[in-house]
Amino acid sequence: MTEKLYPRFKLWLSTDDSEGAFGDGKWRLLESIGRNGSLSAAATELGISYRKAWGDIRKAERSLGVSLIEKHRGGSGGGETLLTETGKAWAQGYSSLRSEVEKTVSIAFERHIVHLERSKD
Amino acid sequence: MTEKLYPRFKLWLSTDDSEGAFGDGKWRLLESIGRNGSLSAAATELGISYRKAWGDIRKAERSLGVSLIEKHRGGSGGGETLLTETGKAWAQGYSSLRSEVEKTVSIAFERHIVHLERSKD
Repeated sequence: MTEKLYPRFKLWLSTDDSEGAFGDGKWRLLESIGRNGSLSAAATELGISYRKAWGDIRKAERSLGVSLIEKHRGGSGGGETLLTETGKAWAQGYSSLRSEVEKTVSIAFERHIVHLERSKD
Repeated sequence: MTEKLYPRFKLWLSTDDSEGAFGDGKWRLLESIGRNGSLSAAATELGISYRKAWGDIRKAERSLGVSLIEKHRGGSGGGETLLTETGKAWAQGYSSLRSEVEKTVSIAFERHIVHLERSKD
């Protein structure tokens, strides 16, 4: 009897010039910026440096050819960083893509693999 | 204008003890053994050493708790290595899982991402 088997997957978007143009890491970073209204708070939440967070966003913006975040200065909190409408659309679109893939991985694993595990006994 | 974007994915099966219990590499190795009737021919086809091919199969067999290949001795060719019925079933099951995921990645990319690319212009 062996241990339980789990399906795993990794999903990302590439261009010819940029293998990791967009993926789970940059998606989570966008989501966190949207929740926190701050790039540094998002970096802290994800356990990465501010420099890496900034670099990742800039790399995604260059690869995708869009602006994903924008700074709003002033106000009581000293300004904030928000997602652009395009940034929100990319976060939502990638989230939908990822959810569909995750669901299919789970269903197809049940359909094609689970009976193989059982038949081995 | 940026370059064309492509969806990419990696799929694999894990146990708590074995992160890479089964995946594309071991699946391709099984398929090649099935086609070639030989572990060394399969290793050559995939550009890996016989030692690695043998180790990968043994690791998969231990993780999954099944026998995937069997040696048949004798005959004019000096014997061959074939997939067991269980090995054939795992190769087929993983192939079906992978095909469904690949199809969903492609369809969901068209549905959720492609319009974001177009809207940036």
